[in-house]
Amino acid sequence: MSRKFVVAAAQLGPIARNESRDRVISRLLALFHRAAACGARLVVFPELALTTFFPRWYFEREEELLAFFERSMPDTATRPLFEAAAARSCGFYLGYAELTPEGRRFNTAILVDERARIIGKYRKVHLPGHREHEPWRPFQHLEKRYFEPGDLGFPVFEAFGGKVGMLICNDRRWPEAWRVLGLQGVELVAVGYNTPQHYPPVPQHDHLQNFHNHLVLQAGAYQNGTWVVATAKCGVEEGCLLIGQSCIVAPTGEIVAMCTTLDDELALAEIDLDRTKEIKNHIFDFALHRRPECYGPICAIP
Amino acid sequence: MSRKFVVAAAQLGPIARNESRDRVISRLLALFHRAAACGARLVVFPELALTTFFPRWYFEREEELLAFFERSMPDTATRPLFEAAAARSCGFYLGYAELTPEGRRFNTAILVDERARIIGKYRKVHLPGHREHEPWRPFQHLEKRYFEPGDLGFPVFEAFGGKVGMLICNDRRWPEAWRVLGLQGVELVAVGYNTPQHYPPVPQHDHLQNFHNHLVLQAGAYQNGTWVVATAKCGVEEGCLLIGQSCIVAPTGEIVAMCTTLDDELALAEIDLDRTKEIKNHIFDFALHRRPECYGPICAIP
Repeated sequence: MSRKFVVAAAQLGPIARNESRDRVISRLLALFHRAAACGARLVVFPELALTTFFPRWYFEREEELLAFFERSMPDTATRPLFEAAAARSCGFYLGYAELTPEGRRFNTAILVDERARIIGKYRKVHLPGHREHEPWRPFQHLEKRYFEPGDLGFPVFEAFGGKVGMLICNDRRWPEAWRVLGLQGVELVAVGYNTPQHYPPVPQHDHLQNFHNHLVLQAGAYQNGTWVVATAKCGVEEGCLLIGQSCIVAPTGEIVAMCTTLDDELALAEIDLDRTKEIKNHIFDFALHRRPECYGPICAIP
Repeated sequence: MSRKFVVAAAQLGPIARNESRDRVISRLLALFHRAAACGARLVVFPELALTTFFPRWYFEREEELLAFFERSMPDTATRPLFEAAAARSCGFYLGYAELTPEGRRFNTAILVDERARIIGKYRKVHLPGHREHEPWRPFQHLEKRYFEPGDLGFPVFEAFGGKVGMLICNDRRWPEAWRVLGLQGVELVAVGYNTPQHYPPVPQHDHLQNFHNHLVLQAGAYQNGTWVVATAKCGVEEGCLLIGQSCIVAPTGEIVAMCTTLDDELALAEIDLDRTKEIKNHIFDFALHRRPECYGPICAIP
């Protein structure tokens, strides 16, 4: 299988709280078909791509919360996306809220290959925000309340002719997450995010959100010699502004494609997985240059 | 002691192979006194700041190699720098080639406080380059031949009213090095470097050297909530172009001062160590958000 192909970041504008799954899926499908028409073999959708970013609200009633979760995948709503993948021979990354049969809740992403098979699942490890209702905030960020930390580690999957990993939103800020993927030889990392422009605890950094987004994506790409496709849900969603600038980053850390609206938009690039070798076999030849005997504190459990 | 003070990156232009230690020290002193006159409390000099970057040559005779090393610190040549530190109440970071009484060789940096006491030593952990003579290269990079990997870990020192760590050149590209400092609460990291513009194994990335330098410094600063003072030896040194752009980076990852020549030059900034809290206590609150149980592969020794 060729290691040179087109990928797409399929950025979403805001999703209203009352927007139906079917309506959202129709938006995803429109982006998917446009990307496939450009020859894309992989389309990366955002984190929690099927609903509004619901952790911004404190729900007293569990049924209100659970309405945002998927019980199975594919389910009735998402099946058309899998059908499109099979018809177009184009895979995708999709973020969604996962409710397991045991009632556990995770912030999850799946990797679907060109034959529409789910070949990988990742559950977000680095949950940001807070656990208790904090009424002083203009909006909540209750991921620590609504989700368990991911229990699948940072897996890498053989897919699309190479090695593919997944991160979700806040994971991208943590160099450890990138490195665990990098140590498995990852060549493409798909990342979805919902990132408010306004960070209530430290509002003096609000103007830096786009800078920080790209900084950590570019550093993660370069320091691990991997392609990155990073996709936002963005725009003013239920009164909360989310950043955009979805992008595709080369293993050199260079941004090679970027969205410039805060709405449904594609960023496309032709990538070559072999270009990861320019980094992996030289400046960041891990076997030659890493000194894990000096890294102990990173893995110490307090 | 105040946690708000002026720091300087004291960038050096090229040092010729036949330039005497005394001549080099006079250049360091000129920069040091100018920085002190601006109120600096800490001046950061480059890696291997007392000589030309000698790992670019293959030496057959050990005495040729050892001529670039210091046997003690301070020694006759560097004593005026310590005297200036005491007189000006201004400390410094100095990189040099260290020869121990047992004949071991390290790429070393020391931290000297405002009373001219050596309060910290660091030996470079991530040695780049190669071990054997490779005549195909236009210049050698024989750090792996001439130095042992540092055996002191990544220590952090109580100094200048806060917690100070040191890295040397290639260390700055490795997120593990930053993180081990960050886990100790580091608030200021001093880094010296000698970085050729031309990387013979992958010349197609030569135009990205300045970008990569700033990318890793900014990511290291942001992801650990620390100030960074990073200082180059630069310019055309014995026919080899070294990058400059010495800089001071805020805990937000923003570059707040930068050199714009490839010669002896100061970059100055007033920094406030308390601003590290904006990062450390929120987005990168390690105790709250890190998941070390998922980081095991980073510390695994193959």
